[in-house]
Amino acid sequence: MVEAPPAGRYGARMSNTVKLADVARAAGVSQGTVSNVFNRPDLVSPELRERVEAAARTLGYRGPDPRGRLLRAGRVNAIGVVSGDPLATFFADPYDRRLLAGIARGCDDRGAGIALVSAADDEAASWNIRTALVDGFILNCLVEGSRLVDHAARRGLPFVAVDHSPGNGADVVQVDDRAGARLAAAHLADLGHRRFAVLALGFDVDRRVGFVDCDRVKAIRYDVVRNRLAGFRDAIAAVGAPEPLVWESPNTAAAAEAGVMAVLARDPAVTAFLCMSDVLAMAAIDALRAAGRRVPEDVSVTGYDDVDDAATVRPSLTTVHQPIEDKGAAAIRMVFDGDAEDRGSRVVTLPVSLVVRGSTGPAPRR
Amino acid sequence: MVEAPPAGRYGARMSNTVKLADVARAAGVSQGTVSNVFNRPDLVSPELRERVEAAARTLGYRGPDPRGRLLRAGRVNAIGVVSGDPLATFFADPYDRRLLAGIARGCDDRGAGIALVSAADDEAASWNIRTALVDGFILNCLVEGSRLVDHAARRGLPFVAVDHSPGNGADVVQVDDRAGARLAAAHLADLGHRRFAVLALGFDVDRRVGFVDCDRVKAIRYDVVRNRLAGFRDAIAAVGAPEPLVWESPNTAAAAEAGVMAVLARDPAVTAFLCMSDVLAMAAIDALRAAGRRVPEDVSVTGYDDVDDAATVRPSLTTVHQPIEDKGAAAIRMVFDGDAEDRGSRVVTLPVSLVVRGSTGPAPRR
Repeated sequence: MVEAPPAGRYGARMSNTVKLADVARAAGVSQGTVSNVFNRPDLVSPELRERVEAAARTLGYRGPDPRGRLLRAGRVNAIGVVSGDPLATFFADPYDRRLLAGIARGCDDRGAGIALVSAADDEAASWNIRTALVDGFILNCLVEGSRLVDHAARRGLPFVAVDHSPGNGADVVQVDDRAGARLAAAHLADLGHRRFAVLALGFDVDRRVGFVDCDRVKAIRYDVVRNRLAGFRDAIAAVGAPEPLVWESPNTAAAAEAGVMAVLARDPAVTAFLCMSDVLAMAAIDALRAAGRRVPEDVSVTGYDDVDDAATVRPSLTTVHQPIEDKGAAAIRMVFDGDAEDRGSRVVTLPVSLVVRGSTGPAPRR
Repeated sequence: MVEAPPAGRYGARMSNTVKLADVARAAGVSQGTVSNVFNRPDLVSPELRERVEAAARTLGYRGPDPRGRLLRAGRVNAIGVVSGDPLATFFADPYDRRLLAGIARGCDDRGAGIALVSAADDEAASWNIRTALVDGFILNCLVEGSRLVDHAARRGLPFVAVDHSPGNGADVVQVDDRAGARLAAAHLADLGHRRFAVLALGFDVDRRVGFVDCDRVKAIRYDVVRNRLAGFRDAIAAVGAPEPLVWESPNTAAAAEAGVMAVLARDPAVTAFLCMSDVLAMAAIDALRAAGRRVPEDVSVTGYDDVDDAATVRPSLTTVHQPIEDKGAAAIRMVFDGDAEDRGSRVVTLPVSLVVRGSTGPAPRR
């Protein structure tokens, strides 16, 4: 510590003038030895290393320009994770942070780093994907026809799209979303429920909040939303129950509460809420309580994802479990261990299951 | 989408042979126009852009090498976050992910990316810090004398150490940890408690688990641990209570449960557990219940951090609130908006406060 001058004391100016050769001369060693001290310190004895580092510090030499090194190096040993959502979502959203934990464990196993690549708008996405110093990309939260896939393909590095429908030139890691949704709705139908409402995730990037009609359903751009809605409908139709009310909103508690109030106002006889995320479901339970409905005695609620809190909230949440961290691990394997030949056509589909807990019960007698 | 060939169809081989000039010729435009399409697409009409991109796709030209661009560009518009912990901790630990959320919001505001830099061992840290393509670093989880500060200083970019004691050549963002610990212990003393135990975070990187003696206390290498322990002792000594039992462990539930059992076995009369994190405190409450002690009727427990779950667990956790996301935001401001002149000497100390909830109560009568 002590002998290391603070960053402010030697800047780019000096390091541009001081050359590796100067350090070699000052330390009385060969340029190869200086190079080893900075690039392969394990090859140099501690004494020699300290002597060279002391000389470098005295001269204000910071070592070879890493960007120059990267031009020579083959791999960066880092993965780029791209999302249309703000970067903060990776740490704030209970699903995203589990997915990223799975990705991070795969990187920890390889000693690799993670670059969180902002793709807030297409301009930023195009630039950031083109310039990110990584060995490959994992794309998250993609709408159908997302140009992120174009940008990644143009970059020519391996990339995987998570929860994106196959056939777009991207390798894909997904779960069987439709089957999972079917399980949740069938469970409620078996409990005698016949009046359903769906709290859906946003159909498009426009952050619309409100009930949806047939045209809006036809225009769904998120595969996850399309598949989960289809699965709910499969099971509802199978028991001849009426079409569910469908409320669309971003994945926030406030929007879910608004949805519950709107549903109860339009159809007070609804006894079952099918939610496309645990975040929406937990907020719906709070809103139903606030509206004087007991869960599950009066109204049953199902979630989707099985995030950390799903098992510990009261009532505990009946939800569709998906192997979130396994998705991240599978994506990492595809990018790092992938074979260039079959790139763009690989699909990994992981299984889902229904976890029945305290938020669902028999439909109330009328 | 449709016209974009999958990544596998054009690789580095072709892009090395196809030059910008070839694309210009094929599209019948100037090389400057092709350059604009890839570097400043906003300057090019959609029609021209599509024509050039079509030609580029046909030839398999992926645009200028981003690494070449970075040699010319001044800023990378990305921040490196370095931690001695595995990268997965950033998403799994309830404190870390709030800190990172604050950092990420600061980056979102600037359209900047985040590079999570692995520093699992010194070899990896030295290499990764030297080669990370970033404009500056935020260092987290540093032990005293950590070489991460050397590595960052040698790189010559702005860097900030979070929760590191000032005076090591690093800019610092911290909270008043000693004052926070004093508040927690004084609160318990005011409630009549006189027999204390401390569940401490690890004193060093060795992941030791067990009771600590004076020599071990003298050897603490984490400033956060030293300051919080000192604050607990200040308030305990102020009421003339005996020295607390101190149990040291990594920040895991299992280790905290072992600590509770060990403390109760050594001194069954302990009525107050001072924990250095909410993770340890919540696990301690579970362990005390399992041991047949009621919280807070028989034993009081305090946490540190005030993470998301602290307010919602039962009993809700009395804990030291620190502005976790503000720490991240302050670190980002220091790195991006810092002035080179005063680098290495700036210290931002944010305030802490005690949040009294359900896990603390009057000491039981004997």
